[in-house]
Amino acid sequence: MNRRIVIYMVGQIMRLESALLLLPMAVAITYREFHGIAAFGFTAAVAFLIGMTLIGMTKKHDKVMFAREGFSIVTLAWILLSLVGALPFYLSGEIPNFCNAFFETVSGFTTTGASILDNVEVMSKGMLFWRSFTHWIGGMGILVLMMAIIPTESGRSMHMMRAEMPGPVVGKLVPKIRDTAKILYIIYLVLTAIEFVFLLIGGMPVFDSLVHTLGTAGTGGFGIKADSIASYSPYLQWVIAVFMVVFSVNFNLFYLLLLKRFELVLKNTELWFFITVIAISTLMISFSIMPIYGNYGDSLRYSFFQVSSVISTTGYSTADFNMWPSLAKNILFILMFVGGCAGSTAGGIKISRIIIMLKAVYNNIKQQYHSRSVSTVSIDGKALDQMTLSRVTNYFIVYMLLNVAVFLLISFEQWDFETNLTATVSCINNVGPGFSKVGPAGSYSGYSDFSTIVLSLAMLFGRLEIFPILLAINPGNWIRPRKLR
Amino acid sequence: MNRRIVIYMVGQIMRLESALLLLPMAVAITYREFHGIAAFGFTAAVAFLIGMTLIGMTKKHDKVMFAREGFSIVTLAWILLSLVGALPFYLSGEIPNFCNAFFETVSGFTTTGASILDNVEVMSKGMLFWRSFTHWIGGMGILVLMMAIIPTESGRSMHMMRAEMPGPVVGKLVPKIRDTAKILYIIYLVLTAIEFVFLLIGGMPVFDSLVHTLGTAGTGGFGIKADSIASYSPYLQWVIAVFMVVFSVNFNLFYLLLLKRFELVLKNTELWFFITVIAISTLMISFSIMPIYGNYGDSLRYSFFQVSSVISTTGYSTADFNMWPSLAKNILFILMFVGGCAGSTAGGIKISRIIIMLKAVYNNIKQQYHSRSVSTVSIDGKALDQMTLSRVTNYFIVYMLLNVAVFLLISFEQWDFETNLTATVSCINNVGPGFSKVGPAGSYSGYSDFSTIVLSLAMLFGRLEIFPILLAINPGNWIRPRKLR
Repeated sequence: MNRRIVIYMVGQIMRLESALLLLPMAVAITYREFHGIAAFGFTAAVAFLIGMTLIGMTKKHDKVMFAREGFSIVTLAWILLSLVGALPFYLSGEIPNFCNAFFETVSGFTTTGASILDNVEVMSKGMLFWRSFTHWIGGMGILVLMMAIIPTESGRSMHMMRAEMPGPVVGKLVPKIRDTAKILYIIYLVLTAIEFVFLLIGGMPVFDSLVHTLGTAGTGGFGIKADSIASYSPYLQWVIAVFMVVFSVNFNLFYLLLLKRFELVLKNTELWFFITVIAISTLMISFSIMPIYGNYGDSLRYSFFQVSSVISTTGYSTADFNMWPSLAKNILFILMFVGGCAGSTAGGIKISRIIIMLKAVYNNIKQQYHSRSVSTVSIDGKALDQMTLSRVTNYFIVYMLLNVAVFLLISFEQWDFETNLTATVSCINNVGPGFSKVGPAGSYSGYSDFSTIVLSLAMLFGRLEIFPILLAINPGNWIRPRKLR
Repeated sequence: MNRRIVIYMVGQIMRLESALLLLPMAVAITYREFHGIAAFGFTAAVAFLIGMTLIGMTKKHDKVMFAREGFSIVTLAWILLSLVGALPFYLSGEIPNFCNAFFETVSGFTTTGASILDNVEVMSKGMLFWRSFTHWIGGMGILVLMMAIIPTESGRSMHMMRAEMPGPVVGKLVPKIRDTAKILYIIYLVLTAIEFVFLLIGGMPVFDSLVHTLGTAGTGGFGIKADSIASYSPYLQWVIAVFMVVFSVNFNLFYLLLLKRFELVLKNTELWFFITVIAISTLMISFSIMPIYGNYGDSLRYSFFQVSSVISTTGYSTADFNMWPSLAKNILFILMFVGGCAGSTAGGIKISRIIIMLKAVYNNIKQQYHSRSVSTVSIDGKALDQMTLSRVTNYFIVYMLLNVAVFLLISFEQWDFETNLTATVSCINNVGPGFSKVGPAGSYSGYSDFSTIVLSLAMLFGRLEIFPILLAINPGNWIRPRKLR
């Protein structure tokens, strides 16, 4: 493996993180939070030093980059990013346990939104902003951001993008990767700005609007109130609910909208499937919770908000859905696995993978029936090759194995079945809250350091979709093969 | 489709059931249970009449049989078998609700062992025997039994066997299907007899030994005591624990033992994987429950018994594992999905499917790493073709979808998350008990008629491994195609 380019790129990411840390520092300055200013300033300096050291060590490097280099860069970058990003919480003393600070930061970057904070309302403004800002950075991806703003020298940076962008296939919007990254971030910025304005119009305070917009855009879910979004007006709840859906739609579709290729957007299978799942789930849950809220309007709002929040893997709540009837709860549990569309900021299995699997299964049944017929699986008129198909089904198998492994690893703690199982599923799918003790009214603070680390890794595996990390930690990557000595 | 042969074969199965019903009638006569004698006698007459009518209607039939005929026969036979088999419980008044009687019978034939009885100890001996006898019949399969004893006229009965025998691939032991079926049933009978003798030696009463042997052999789990196997001596618990494992081993291996091909048995991948999973799970659980039982000997016995019971999908218990620590409970939950070896009487995903999926995933990762390499998946030295591979992965996908569907369908009831989820998983995998309200100390009696039927179908789908039923209920099968008119 070309280790020099891996280290070089990780250095670049560290330098970028040091620049990004200046924003929460500015917030801390605005609110005169001196411990925050010190914590962010020191961390920015640390990140800058690490970055410059790594870059300096590997200034001369071969520009060749294949899948393993791309995957290793993404894996290392995300781990280092979270370790350094946890420092402000730890140094400021606002999260005194480093494992917890690491969990909170990974939860931010992976857009999970699971929190170890029992009372988020005592946190300083700078820290609250940094939490939500990590969602925004992690949502579209920090390597994609780097590609968009720093001239990349390698023509093979596609591999980094493939490792960081969710979904079974990553399409370039335009021939150049750098331009694709730019377009994605511009769409991301514009949509973020629109939501911010909608929230301001509804009378949400500026700081609240900013934090919740970042949390929605990254489909993360960190808030600033103990009851999440419940205390805001119905208008604000509707705005956030709609934007959670918007940010879980494949960003390629927004680009097609800009190009006025409306017919392609309207014919998009993934979009229609996504909308159908949301509509059916919302209807069923709204009927199920009607006895609690008395009227259909409120039930529909609570139901749509929660469906949108869970399927987009954001994790905001307007009600303690842990107390809802079984049907409502159990639909939400299944939606945790589903997730949003590929190429969005959402987590989960992804709608397109589910469509591909359903079509593959249908074809297989047809083949068993008419034993000689051969048919191909196609989506949006394009036939899928066997390689993509088996990658999707294999992803599903590895994904289920990951759920099993994490579930068993956190079972050393005496938490109930429902808590451990939903904590596992919620973290892997980057949702945030689960049921029972990790429900909307609870937190992850009761877990031991060991389980906190296991769940942090689970979030990373989920966000990067497992394979990049598996390929990166292959020891063969790092030990120089004998024949090349 | 050749509907006449389907109806003819189902008629044969009915006639066979009427003969099988004479056994519980004999038990009822022995214990002078007159309501039982009447119920079994009447039901046997009904089954005989249905059988003769169906056979009479279709005496003249084309012997051609393909997959769809085989799958339709198996599906229809199992449903009718359970409907008729439920009559004795219903007619005798011992299970006054017919839905419950149907559930209990399906649970018997599918070797699940889930019960709606709150107090099994009040049942008559005849009914208790019939419950356990259905396990024995369903374990190896009633069509396999029919092929073993009635001269089959069709050379294509392989399709029926494929639909009824669990696992990804069904191998013929010997060139003739009928001889294969005979060998399987002889092995089954001999092993059953051996267990019976071992239980008698340990001092278990004759009736108890008979019932528990039938329940173990079919990996079913119906017992005759409220605390299942807990009140029997440690020796008897060890005997049953060992035989639950024995009956979850691929029966082909016993045939190889008879042929003295020991080297093939010792090299069998599935067997080693199965033993390894049992050993690791037993060790982990025994450490986890040690604080409860105080000494390692008892912990090991309780642990091995429960691991053996769950992985073999039998469902007997010697302890209320619902009260065990999280780690122990959660390992058992995962083992419910795993199940025994292919070609045994056990349910679950099956060890061989899991091995095939793991190998497929490993190959896929290797392929992503060395993008050009092509490698095949092989098991026991034999390469698996792409068709078998994709059938296994597709089975896993459909299987997970079935879990989701059943879980949501029974969520209309206000039972807790843990009860509904484990009831779903336990029924689909033909285990029997779950956790919480359906734990070893509870029963399924609280479920509504609707959920009872849903769970009954879940057991059938699980036992027949989904695809045969999906292919059988394809409406295209039953509507005569226009061109043939």
